[in-house]
Amino acid sequence: MKPEYEMFEIKKSDLAGRIGILHTNHGKVETPAYVPVIHPVKQSIPAKKIKEMGFDLVITNAYITLKQRGNEAVEKGIHKIIDYDGAIMTDSGGYQVLEYGDIDTNYKAMAEFEKKIATDFAIPLDKPTGFGLSKKKAIEYVGHTLKVSKETLDARDNNGQIWIGPIQGSEHSDLVRGSTRELVKYGFQMLALGSPVEFMESYEYRLLAQMIITAKKEMPDSIPLHLFGAGHPLTIPLAVALGCDTFDSASYMLYAKHDRYITEDGTTHLDEVSYFSCPCEICTKFKPKEILSLPRDDRTNNLALHNLYSIKAEVDRVKQSIHEGRLWEYVLKKARAHPKLFEAASVFTSNTSFFSQGVPAFKENAIFLFSKEDQFRPEVTRFHNMVRKFRTGKKNLVIVADGPMKPFYLSAEYNKLKRKFTKKIDDTQFCQYNPYLGIIPLELSDMYPAAHYVMSNSQCNQEDFTEFATTLNVFLKQNKFKTIHAANDDFLKYHSRLTKKKIRFFNFKTTIGRAKKQFRK
Amino acid sequence: MKPEYEMFEIKKSDLAGRIGILHTNHGKVETPAYVPVIHPVKQSIPAKKIKEMGFDLVITNAYITLKQRGNEAVEKGIHKIIDYDGAIMTDSGGYQVLEYGDIDTNYKAMAEFEKKIATDFAIPLDKPTGFGLSKKKAIEYVGHTLKVSKETLDARDNNGQIWIGPIQGSEHSDLVRGSTRELVKYGFQMLALGSPVEFMESYEYRLLAQMIITAKKEMPDSIPLHLFGAGHPLTIPLAVALGCDTFDSASYMLYAKHDRYITEDGTTHLDEVSYFSCPCEICTKFKPKEILSLPRDDRTNNLALHNLYSIKAEVDRVKQSIHEGRLWEYVLKKARAHPKLFEAASVFTSNTSFFSQGVPAFKENAIFLFSKEDQFRPEVTRFHNMVRKFRTGKKNLVIVADGPMKPFYLSAEYNKLKRKFTKKIDDTQFCQYNPYLGIIPLELSDMYPAAHYVMSNSQCNQEDFTEFATTLNVFLKQNKFKTIHAANDDFLKYHSRLTKKKIRFFNFKTTIGRAKKQFRK
Repeated sequence: MKPEYEMFEIKKSDLAGRIGILHTNHGKVETPAYVPVIHPVKQSIPAKKIKEMGFDLVITNAYITLKQRGNEAVEKGIHKIIDYDGAIMTDSGGYQVLEYGDIDTNYKAMAEFEKKIATDFAIPLDKPTGFGLSKKKAIEYVGHTLKVSKETLDARDNNGQIWIGPIQGSEHSDLVRGSTRELVKYGFQMLALGSPVEFMESYEYRLLAQMIITAKKEMPDSIPLHLFGAGHPLTIPLAVALGCDTFDSASYMLYAKHDRYITEDGTTHLDEVSYFSCPCEICTKFKPKEILSLPRDDRTNNLALHNLYSIKAEVDRVKQSIHEGRLWEYVLKKARAHPKLFEAASVFTSNTSFFSQGVPAFKENAIFLFSKEDQFRPEVTRFHNMVRKFRTGKKNLVIVADGPMKPFYLSAEYNKLKRKFTKKIDDTQFCQYNPYLGIIPLELSDMYPAAHYVMSNSQCNQEDFTEFATTLNVFLKQNKFKTIHAANDDFLKYHSRLTKKKIRFFNFKTTIGRAKKQFRK
Repeated sequence: MKPEYEMFEIKKSDLAGRIGILHTNHGKVETPAYVPVIHPVKQSIPAKKIKEMGFDLVITNAYITLKQRGNEAVEKGIHKIIDYDGAIMTDSGGYQVLEYGDIDTNYKAMAEFEKKIATDFAIPLDKPTGFGLSKKKAIEYVGHTLKVSKETLDARDNNGQIWIGPIQGSEHSDLVRGSTRELVKYGFQMLALGSPVEFMESYEYRLLAQMIITAKKEMPDSIPLHLFGAGHPLTIPLAVALGCDTFDSASYMLYAKHDRYITEDGTTHLDEVSYFSCPCEICTKFKPKEILSLPRDDRTNNLALHNLYSIKAEVDRVKQSIHEGRLWEYVLKKARAHPKLFEAASVFTSNTSFFSQGVPAFKENAIFLFSKEDQFRPEVTRFHNMVRKFRTGKKNLVIVADGPMKPFYLSAEYNKLKRKFTKKIDDTQFCQYNPYLGIIPLELSDMYPAAHYVMSNSQCNQEDFTEFATTLNVFLKQNKFKTIHAANDDFLKYHSRLTKKKIRFFNFKTTIGRAKKQFRK
């Protein structure tokens, strides 16, 4: 079943992250979007204020609404109930039903209720697998959720409501995979992934990342993905880069209730905050000690507001990074906020072809190259793949280190080399190299990103550059050079030993900035 | 000459950075402090507003004040001239004098003027070396500056003014060193380091870091250091961690004039900003496009205000990092904002004993261990040094990997090992190891940070851990073990080969969280 209209529009992408627009019955929602949780009964920060702050989509609980304000909600609609005129997502309360063992509620009644209250994004009454469920139980829960989801979707009205298919399975990746495939087949316009609280609590970001990527690999780009319960600045860049478009959380309020202050890199008890490094309306009005001395409710609400600003700032940083084509840089930098987050970096370095799909062929900004992880960034991998297909009939190969001037064919180094190899010039294949980008043939030296990178001039381990080694080998195998000349440097010498080819080394210095030479300790 | 009173008070420190208080004629200034440049004639953002934003120290130009508002300034004092009741620093205008070749102005008159206008921090009329000056010329300039500085200081009044000794020499490190030594000897209560604009413009952060550290090594802790012209969020963490207490810059205004928006990681032309990731009063009021459409002056002032908020937020993040004992983490993370900044990381890994001085013996927070650089963080180096002095008479050594429960002697692993080696238990030295911390003898396993770290469980290169190798060797040399038992893992096997000792390997698994095992791709 094909969706009736294009509900999700993609504007820009980087890695698996994208800036998009969700078209809903209550206006447009730009993604990636943090979706604040609004309590249908005891919400102390008005949803209106949250809208003014720039959140165009919120989530509330349909189950609690049904139980506590059922008739009223059917009469007035959910937008009046929580006093919010933007787009609303309703969680069906699967967790609550499981927890309270409520047998009065069934998925048909729930779906009917979600229709009647005119929520913009509705979720079928699923059976969350959580974490640590036996395979047998998990299979049963996933099966139930799929059955309910299909029936609910088939019974939907053509009323502009967007039904979200809930992916279950958590740590059982085959279930996550199968569950996603089925929901896509049913025709869901949007999917949502249950993120086990346990992953978050134990900081198992690598597992979270693997779960998301498992689901994403089974979804077409045109379907947006929601991630449940993951709205902390520490998780957001990871989730977005993996392809989550929306993500909800009540953390802004839950943390505030425990006097916890959200920053870009973590959450700190207000007791331990000496300096507010945030210029929001709350942090410029109060000092940390002043907030601590406010009456409880006042303290909680002020902190919750700051927490919302802090989360919004993170989302905006990530969006701006996508806009600038720097999401890789941003995610890898953010990874250094916590050692467990750093572990998730391996998911990025080991799924290059997946991430490559969302990366534009050309970017306006130069890419940054810091350390070994960067040899696996999509732009770099693409360049390696191009060079591995490069063919030349020339018999003499010359390789030197890259220099400050780019592209190679416009550089002073190239002129110097031409003079040196003037006798065989027509039969010489000139190449630069760079530990990250590998071999850069003169002819490809203006292909992105060969002339568009800024690299750290830091000590690096030769052995770390496995992509370089592979490309060099392929390059030498595919092209039948009779003589090979290489600049006499440690990096090339190390790698030449691996090739088993006879290589003549010559002394060649790159023109480097004067600054580097002048400061001696 | 000993200063009359304690003008600078240190509250807390981490690496070479510190939180301190400068006591001035116009109140206390908490450091590290960004010192906004105020133009004495054409300042469009009122200094009063800047004070309200939380900047308790500003800098203005004494030379321009003298030339354009000389008599008025003497009559009213500099605080009335710029309408600011906090502490004021005055730059003497060395650059201007050099540039305009003004021979009417001499250092005695300048010093007299700075006294009369009652500035809080005065600077003698120096001769800045800038960058790229020949050694001969640089020696001449440094000599002149030292002579002027000594005479000016000797002629000072006992009026509470703080005279700042200007360190010159830029890329000539011997001149920086000598110049610092002399100024300290003269009795300056505070020093300032000229940061060559060229270092900043070419992003030569490593050179900047080397220059700062060269000066710092010649200064007692009790003397605060000002850094000229370095007030960008990209530079601030580096400067603070290296021991700069105050730093001025006009960048908030200069960038604003060119429609440039300062963020934590760089500066972006407003044209390229799609999302304001800042919750300050300006960024919540306007969208990027709206600011661009404001009349020029309005646009500039609004942008300048945001830029000030952005810089202040960075300073507060750095202060909070010192407060939490996480400055190492913060600086190393920030280093990934730009490849040239990343180069400066080597200054931190290669000056451990210098940075160690400011690091408390015990911290409340666990240290984070991400990658090879972290083996050189002061807390870790100290632990290595302690273990290298460890002596035992026991003849049997057992080494296993560290586990999740700390300290070692309370862990399940230790119990398991005790059972395994029960026969020789009184003669057995039990140790854990960790690639970063090295060997952890049972007896030292609760010494900070052996039980206070969070480590990334990422693949690491055995060869990168040179500190581990050294400690293992020293440990085996100093203690005469007859038998050595080691857990059979790749890391220990690699390092055991380096020791040339006979080692018996046995299979031993650490108890790890169930989560790690369960998610398989």
